[in-house]
Amino acid sequence: MRGTVVKFGGSSVATPEKIGLIADGIIKRKRDAGAVVVVVSAMGKTTNGLIELSQRITAVPDKRAMDMLLATGEQVSIAMLAMALIERNCPAVPLTGWQAGILTESGHMNSRVNGVDTTRIQRELAQDHVVVVAGFQGVSEDEEITTLGRGGSDTTAVALAAALNWPCEIYTDVEGIYTVDPRLHADARKIDTISHDETFELSCLGAKVIEPRSVELAAKYGVDLQILLNTMDKPGTRITRQSDPMEQNVVNKVSVLDNVLLVSVDQAPEERLPEMFSNLAEAKVNIDVISRTPNGEGVSFTAPMENEADIVRVLQGMPIDFVIRRDKSKVSVVGNAMRTHPGVAAKAFRAFHEHKLPFRQVSTSEISISFIVDAETKHRAVKALIEAYGL
Amino acid sequence: MRGTVVKFGGSSVATPEKIGLIADGIIKRKRDAGAVVVVVSAMGKTTNGLIELSQRITAVPDKRAMDMLLATGEQVSIAMLAMALIERNCPAVPLTGWQAGILTESGHMNSRVNGVDTTRIQRELAQDHVVVVAGFQGVSEDEEITTLGRGGSDTTAVALAAALNWPCEIYTDVEGIYTVDPRLHADARKIDTISHDETFELSCLGAKVIEPRSVELAAKYGVDLQILLNTMDKPGTRITRQSDPMEQNVVNKVSVLDNVLLVSVDQAPEERLPEMFSNLAEAKVNIDVISRTPNGEGVSFTAPMENEADIVRVLQGMPIDFVIRRDKSKVSVVGNAMRTHPGVAAKAFRAFHEHKLPFRQVSTSEISISFIVDAETKHRAVKALIEAYGL
Repeated sequence: MRGTVVKFGGSSVATPEKIGLIADGIIKRKRDAGAVVVVVSAMGKTTNGLIELSQRITAVPDKRAMDMLLATGEQVSIAMLAMALIERNCPAVPLTGWQAGILTESGHMNSRVNGVDTTRIQRELAQDHVVVVAGFQGVSEDEEITTLGRGGSDTTAVALAAALNWPCEIYTDVEGIYTVDPRLHADARKIDTISHDETFELSCLGAKVIEPRSVELAAKYGVDLQILLNTMDKPGTRITRQSDPMEQNVVNKVSVLDNVLLVSVDQAPEERLPEMFSNLAEAKVNIDVISRTPNGEGVSFTAPMENEADIVRVLQGMPIDFVIRRDKSKVSVVGNAMRTHPGVAAKAFRAFHEHKLPFRQVSTSEISISFIVDAETKHRAVKALIEAYGL
Repeated sequence: MRGTVVKFGGSSVATPEKIGLIADGIIKRKRDAGAVVVVVSAMGKTTNGLIELSQRITAVPDKRAMDMLLATGEQVSIAMLAMALIERNCPAVPLTGWQAGILTESGHMNSRVNGVDTTRIQRELAQDHVVVVAGFQGVSEDEEITTLGRGGSDTTAVALAAALNWPCEIYTDVEGIYTVDPRLHADARKIDTISHDETFELSCLGAKVIEPRSVELAAKYGVDLQILLNTMDKPGTRITRQSDPMEQNVVNKVSVLDNVLLVSVDQAPEERLPEMFSNLAEAKVNIDVISRTPNGEGVSFTAPMENEADIVRVLQGMPIDFVIRRDKSKVSVVGNAMRTHPGVAAKAFRAFHEHKLPFRQVSTSEISISFIVDAETKHRAVKALIEAYGL
């Protein structure tokens, strides 16, 4: 069957009125695409509201119960969108994660998708129903409701697209992926085509348009992804195996990831590290950049702010001293051109040096270079890099 | 295994603070009872909020989508209560209707419980977990989320108690069942023991303390029911197979059911009636009192206000004229004594006549007599009946 997976984030379904507009767009899209599976996030700030509600019970909520609580957000969205479609004479069925066959590992709050059982979805599609699937949630083998962590709805959409062998359209409140964040630079230009690899790198480095896990999944299964504006009337950015070679020169971007924790462990002998990082991994801490001082005594790493409680718990359980610094930012330069153009990194270091910008860590990949900086340094660093690379 | 099912309504779990108090009470209760399965409703006015949200999409929401939406209310409650129990070092697990094995027929919004598969619950109880079950919801054979209609959480609690062969404690914001509604009469006395039959009759006649379907289920499976105050520190009313014979004389109550629709069909030939009532039954309309005029041309019946849209839809699909009158009330006198004491009904008719109180319909059962009256007549009718029976 011919069709497409479309995904809408929380801001696109924030009110019943917006849900109505999305319903109109989906009906139009179905005419062209043949069949449509829709993935939606929780309405607006619902998830934050649920987190705040849980904090009125406890600062450290049980993770199984937290998944149970959070999963209600998307369940409300699918019910509302299905109602709106049916109201417009478009047969539709709302499916939760477990009904849609989103099978995950048994961990909670940041669970990985193990597979998709499309039996139910196929049955609904065969009846010409628009299938409205709750993003961000799945079910484990032992019938527990799980959630997929940050950007989980994107993951749901890409996993469904891979399982159905369909393309995947991610509708957002921006027109696509830009050379620089338009909020940082007015002349930012929308990119028409970009590779999975570059998008993955970008998303890891804080470009908020799509989460790295979904891009990784899309790359693995060769899913043709698009990022588009949720008015559904403009071409967006297409993410495919290869970026347009014509674009290579200009795919230089500066991106910023905020709310980074910088954790430093003072005395960390070599033999302690495997245990520490495996404990952190078990606690589902998303460690990003790891640095080791040359004398080999200390180690530091970065992680997202929401992992702070887990990090504290793990490290307090070990015979080590540690310091957590909050509110750091990661400022990155990224572009495929870096593979083949030496001197790109040097230019960044020069920019930091000339503007007397302090940084706490630095890390590089084949196509990016990232600096961990204090919050007050961030904007000056972005400006310096934009100037340095002429973006 | 020894244990008890306890149930808390929406007002008992209206805020995180109230949920905390309930958690304290449950932990105490578990010490005496051995094991506890808790059934909870949605927090406070959540269900009304969800209904209002759906009405911003459509006046007539799709029923499957509506069940999907409503089921989130109880899911939030179980997550919050489980968190509160775990926070207090009491191992607990939240289970939705489908996880708890509440199996229903496939109809939506007023679905009947077909059975309970206690496999999962037993597994959790064996690990000494408090099992927190979402009331009001179940799952149909085709894996659809269903809801059980008005008073559905009571039904969930009684069905679980029946399946586990445990007693069932319904905690509310009143101390039990009273001879007269305390809001109508200050000297109302709490009843210690009452029969399933009398409670069923009472609940059908508008006593809001428990829904008739749950009492019916309790009677069928011989479940020992109690209605208690949610402070969990006072004896309530025990509902068993037989009421205390000492109580028989005083079990005369006046109860009021508001928001009654009175539907009159002018020309309703005999051969049309089976079709009409079976169509209404299919649409899950809860028809209460049916009256037929002596000349055999018209028929009228009462139903709850929330069935109005379904009634209109069914009757408009038939070649008949009908009138719907809203805001009627059903005022009833009920008591086992009526079985053996002739003249009880006569006394009620005399009270209506003497006070010049008009009524639109009257119906009787073995242990009750009910009058359908206009809203403005209600209070005078209650007063007249309280006087007439010396309550």
